Amino acid sequence: MHIVLLNRAVARLGAAALLLSALASGAQSAPQAVNPSWQQVAPGVWKASLGQPEDLSLLSAAGVQPALTRLASLPAAAFPLDAAEIEVRQMDWKVALRLPLAANEDIYGLGVDFSTVRRNGQIFELHVDHWNRRAPTPGRTHAPVPLYISSRGFAVLFDSARYLKVSVGHGVRLAAKQKPPVVDRTTRTIRPATPGTAPIPAPWISALPSDSIEVLANAPGFDVYVFAGPSPMDALRRYNLFCGGGSLPPKWGLGFLTRLPTKATAADVLADVAAFREHGLPLDMIGLEPGWMSHAYPCSLEWDPTRFPDPAGLLGELDRLGVRANLWFNPYIGPPHGKLYGRMLPFAGSHLVWNGLVPDYTLPEARATLAGHLRDEVLRLHPRAVGGFKVDEVDGYDRYLWPETATFPSGHHAEQLRQTYGLLVQRVLLEEFRALDRRTFGQVRGTNAGASSFPFVIYNDNYDFGEYITAVVNSGFAGVLWSPEVRGSDNPEDMLRRIQAVCLSPLALYNGWASPQKLWTHPSALPGIRAALRLRLQLLPYLYHTFAQYHLDGLPVIRPLQLVTSAAATTAGPGGQPALDATTNPYEAPAALKEIKDQYLLGDSLLVALLAPDAASRPVVLPPGRWYDFYTGRLAGEDTTIYVTPPADQLPLFVRDGAIIPRLAGEPLRAPRTGELPRLELWHYGEKPGALRLYDDDGETFAYERGNVSWTDLRAERSPDGTWHGTAITVAGTQTWSYSDPRWFFITP
Amino acid sequence: MHIVLLNRAVARLGAAALLLSALASGAQSAPQAVNPSWQQVAPGVWKASLGQPEDLSLLSAAGVQPALTRLASLPAAAFPLDAAEIEVRQMDWKVALRLPLAANEDIYGLGVDFSTVRRNGQIFELHVDHWNRRAPTPGRTHAPVPLYISSRGFAVLFDSARYLKVSVGHGVRLAAKQKPPVVDRTTRTIRPATPGTAPIPAPWISALPSDSIEVLANAPGFDVYVFAGPSPMDALRRYNLFCGGGSLPPKWGLGFLTRLPTKATAADVLADVAAFREHGLPLDMIGLEPGWMSHAYPCSLEWDPTRFPDPAGLLGELDRLGVRANLWFNPYIGPPHGKLYGRMLPFAGSHLVWNGLVPDYTLPEARATLAGHLRDEVLRLHPRAVGGFKVDEVDGYDRYLWPETATFPSGHHAEQLRQTYGLLVQRVLLEEFRALDRRTFGQVRGTNAGASSFPFVIYNDNYDFGEYITAVVNSGFAGVLWSPEVRGSDNPEDMLRRIQAVCLSPLALYNGWASPQKLWTHPSALPGIRAALRLRLQLLPYLYHTFAQYHLDGLPVIRPLQLVTSAAATTAGPGGQPALDATTNPYEAPAALKEIKDQYLLGDSLLVALLAPDAASRPVVLPPGRWYDFYTGRLAGEDTTIYVTPPADQLPLFVRDGAIIPRLAGEPLRAPRTGELPRLELWHYGEKPGALRLYDDDGETFAYERGNVSWTDLRAERSPDGTWHGTAITVAGTQTWSYSDPRWFFITP
Repeated sequence: MHIVLLNRAVARLGAAALLLSALASGAQSAPQAVNPSWQQVAPGVWKASLGQPEDLSLLSAAGVQPALTRLASLPAAAFPLDAAEIEVRQMDWKVALRLPLAANEDIYGLGVDFSTVRRNGQIFELHVDHWNRRAPTPGRTHAPVPLYISSRGFAVLFDSARYLKVSVGHGVRLAAKQKPPVVDRTTRTIRPATPGTAPIPAPWISALPSDSIEVLANAPGFDVYVFAGPSPMDALRRYNLFCGGGSLPPKWGLGFLTRLPTKATAADVLADVAAFREHGLPLDMIGLEPGWMSHAYPCSLEWDPTRFPDPAGLLGELDRLGVRANLWFNPYIGPPHGKLYGRMLPFAGSHLVWNGLVPDYTLPEARATLAGHLRDEVLRLHPRAVGGFKVDEVDGYDRYLWPETATFPSGHHAEQLRQTYGLLVQRVLLEEFRALDRRTFGQVRGTNAGASSFPFVIYNDNYDFGEYITAVVNSGFAGVLWSPEVRGSDNPEDMLRRIQAVCLSPLALYNGWASPQKLWTHPSALPGIRAALRLRLQLLPYLYHTFAQYHLDGLPVIRPLQLVTSAAATTAGPGGQPALDATTNPYEAPAALKEIKDQYLLGDSLLVALLAPDAASRPVVLPPGRWYDFYTGRLAGEDTTIYVTPPADQLPLFVRDGAIIPRLAGEPLRAPRTGELPRLELWHYGEKPGALRLYDDDGETFAYERGNVSWTDLRAERSPDGTWHGTAITVAGTQTWSYSDPRWFFITP
Repeated sequence: MHIVLLNRAVARLGAAALLLSALASGAQSAPQAVNPSWQQVAPGVWKASLGQPEDLSLLSAAGVQPALTRLASLPAAAFPLDAAEIEVRQMDWKVALRLPLAANEDIYGLGVDFSTVRRNGQIFELHVDHWNRRAPTPGRTHAPVPLYISSRGFAVLFDSARYLKVSVGHGVRLAAKQKPPVVDRTTRTIRPATPGTAPIPAPWISALPSDSIEVLANAPGFDVYVFAGPSPMDALRRYNLFCGGGSLPPKWGLGFLTRLPTKATAADVLADVAAFREHGLPLDMIGLEPGWMSHAYPCSLEWDPTRFPDPAGLLGELDRLGVRANLWFNPYIGPPHGKLYGRMLPFAGSHLVWNGLVPDYTLPEARATLAGHLRDEVLRLHPRAVGGFKVDEVDGYDRYLWPETATFPSGHHAEQLRQTYGLLVQRVLLEEFRALDRRTFGQVRGTNAGASSFPFVIYNDNYDFGEYITAVVNSGFAGVLWSPEVRGSDNPEDMLRRIQAVCLSPLALYNGWASPQKLWTHPSALPGIRAALRLRLQLLPYLYHTFAQYHLDGLPVIRPLQLVTSAAATTAGPGGQPALDATTNPYEAPAALKEIKDQYLLGDSLLVALLAPDAASRPVVLPPGRWYDFYTGRLAGEDTTIYVTPPADQLPLFVRDGAIIPRLAGEPLRAPRTGELPRLELWHYGEKPGALRLYDDDGETFAYERGNVSWTDLRAERSPDGTWHGTAITVAGTQTWSYSDPRWFFITP
């Protein structure tokens, strides 16, 4: 009887089997390594199950559905690593994995860090957490996506919902084939091979580079995925497509979002919309707190009847004004006298957050309870006016969340809930909007791997400009979206620079929840702020196309410069993985770009090099190829570093040679709605002819998934007489071109 | 056959059994809690084995041998907690423990932190690490001793060599009998019980206090120990005595230590000793690097023949000068061409540190190899002159140590090695000195629980004065010794204040390894520095007695003020645990002392309130009882806060009413040696009569363990005519009084 129980149990939970095998092999000696077995699970995507993977992983929490057709359109590729050099080792109840790291290999990714982009030589503790710049070990961030991208043209994902410790090129192994030389720390020399000859000068460094990436998962097992290239960008694309492709927001989501102070009323909301219009500032979304966080900090998810006596009336009025509401909430439930508390109680974990319940959202019943309540209290009030949510507090320092000793009714562990909480909540919300055939675009403070297809943009409470931009760059490596915040400033220049930054990020917003300041508080900054917001709206067709590339091709919206050279190589590439050796790598970023963390490409053609609030000028590293000034069309340079001192109301923005930038004409105050046909402008830059197959759809529903899209071939060509002309021809059989006839501009000085 | 193997394995390693029981009970529901079983293992000390404890724990690594006779002399005490409120829960391969925390309970301890002393509301990750003030979660320190001391008069030790996560009063449980009120975050009020009545104003706080201390061990089990009081100080004493009692250094260890620059030669060593004598500065120890770190950073543990051509000669000369050598080393072995490398190779872990071997010192063979080499290369050179070692790099940021994926030949895990490495190396060294019947006093950078009896003082690379002093205070809660460092300063005032601080800490030292500066670099500071060093030497009998109390009674050398009130209560107490309720606790520190982290008692009677380098004055909180100025005998105050502005060459130092401070007469330049009979001075302060049974022994060997000690009863009394007189009577049957007849001083203004 006991044996039978044992056998059933072993079959059910892998941890025991592992442990027993460790025991049988002698627990008191060092565990042996084996090479994992790889299985191709999608074109160019391999999986190995290490130990006994758990049911709750990052990808399972996100519910990813690979875009297999799109994956198949990428170049064929062989397994990109030397499988004999990949080792897995069972260490009692933990699983250790070693992957080879070449001497000339640069590693990017491993989560949305705010301080560095190149990861070699660092050790990460990947936890969902509020980011802290001074953490002794990096990796605690709002999006600790355990995906790394190698400059040798592949990516690797560790799909575990446990905390992971990842060491990138740190810790030289005794068994390493090639070890760093032994340098005399006192004399800074290497001992000569021949005694009696002079010592060889050499620098001494404390942390020597190793030949491995090593991962320790505190778990009975996990799945590891390898994404082939040939280029690093291709590998990232495969990851995004394996997660279903990137998100495609509604068009209005690419407009401007403003958020009101915490205690704002319905009247305040309408007054703010009116003030935006009065000041000639675009506005598509308005963020508010329905008063449901009032009792303590968790949410009752009930509108406060004093501040919002008629929520449906308010939403109807916002809809009439062409503005979507974005509702601020967090997923903890309180107070006890609220409607939802008792219904959620059976699904709550053992500990409270701010006196509120912590629902176990790994339980379908908990998700259904939340979804049903939101449907009844929010979404049924108006068919369109609630555009999305701001999902707060799904990350957080340890002291704000449940302790790791907390238990949950599903039996999942506190650590697993922490790593997946943001994913689970995003999924609940997204499914509700999908059921209504309405797209959403929201914000979230904590997310993880598998989130590529979630239309949520990460934010946080940081306010350091440089760190913000580095996080924007890193979001591009992680299959997530991240935008800085503007929360006001006493300095007009600071306010303007910050607004410029958010207008060139995935979500353009002003977060006024804690500030009496408005965008018009500083009259001297207002013209520049207005210009930045209008530019954002003008660029909407370009941005929307960029998001379509994210969705359909897996190309990130924010493209780190470290991937751009490689991406270019893809186009020219013959398909298949090129042979890389220790000295040459066609996909390696140029030295000047390896550590660049304050510039990025927004889409195919725009190079963004924002000016920090306290800087009058800055260096800009221009990648290979010619780059042109966005405003004047003047040649800025080619594969060089320039110094720029732009006027206050302009941005250091450069355009790739031959690019076509589709823009809205005029000075639109909001994104176009379904059925509207705004005028398009097509701006061509440089000397190369331009070609762009521009994406479009209805911009609001999921009809694009049912094929209701349009493609238009744009071409800019120069006649033999030197004059430029352009054409726009909608691809036969495609639909819904939402613009009136385009007008061409050839931007030259 | 398979079943037999399985059963043997289960019997051998507890993890499997635990896991199987978890499986049998249904792995997918929240695990149930049980109350651990307690067993009294020494007077007032209880142990519970949670899950299946591992063979390598902190106490087993330290090899503690409880001082049972001494423990029996403490007051009888009942189990100090409500055992029904202590819960252990198996969470797959982890073990969670919950202990109750009362609303009026203050928690101290949990390692040598540099920022706070009271621990309520914090979450700790206890790792051996170089301390980092900005770590998002505290607990990574040079001594992450998992011992907490409760103001309710008990202490608890989690004896695991794994990383521990400890949450102190954080994370309110849904099941808690009393939860904090639900406060409206927006209006800062509590909802009235009766609808229609006014809300009650209340502060909103983000981290609500809980009723628990919760611990998560990533281990199949561990032993937990409870130490009874009745007072918190008694509980700490029981811990120290359970670890064998505190260390008793040789008398010369309480003199002054100076350390030379890295590349110093034998000639430099002798020149520095001569310079100390010339400048009238006491010196007992000189620190040097024998040149054995030269090849890379690990140690060959061979003297460099160019810098030290005649080590035995140098040591003989140092002995003649009355100075002990302190040799700087780290426990990693390199370079490969050294003598020790090949011998240590079979015992090395899978990864290198600075290209050096990381011996698995949990293996007796590895310890014996190190010990044998040190015996041959160092200790045999001279019978006395090597006094100790500076054990470097046994802590360190992750990037300086082996990764957690490293394996070791014993089968112990990287994490376990990290938590115990300092303990293991200290033990090797201590055993070698013990075999020679010579005491040692050294330095170590990383240690842990069980270290009370190790004569090693922790140091680090920090240089923040306030943080240094907080660490000194916290060392008193942790059964370890810690001293700040002085490494030079361009500011004479800064240099002087730092020297004053080290002279009132466990080890008085100047660490000149990286600086050309000397104690006489700033002529203006030299008189004050000389006064501080001389005061250190004058206080040697008092300090030595204080260390004897540490050894024999478990009383820490550094006594945090939070424990002092309680200690006083012990004396008056009836024995046994007093009844504590939610409102009264005779051992609770007064409010003004709860957070004091910049003052401490050095021994029974000296209150140290150091002046920071940049401060001309400071507040001093005087505990209950009268306190007198150390220099003038003037009454400073009683249970109050005073502000002091001392002259540059004096210290804010206060003496307890009735105290007798035994001092060396004159201005000694080194500690007395065996057989010398220096003159003693006995300084009495205040209005109460004084009584002190003064400890003494030979000061150099372990003869004190064989009963070769002396006790002298000192009494200071006032005659009816108001004149004071003192007596000193050696207790019959005790030996080795090392002083000539004492002279009494009654210190009054």
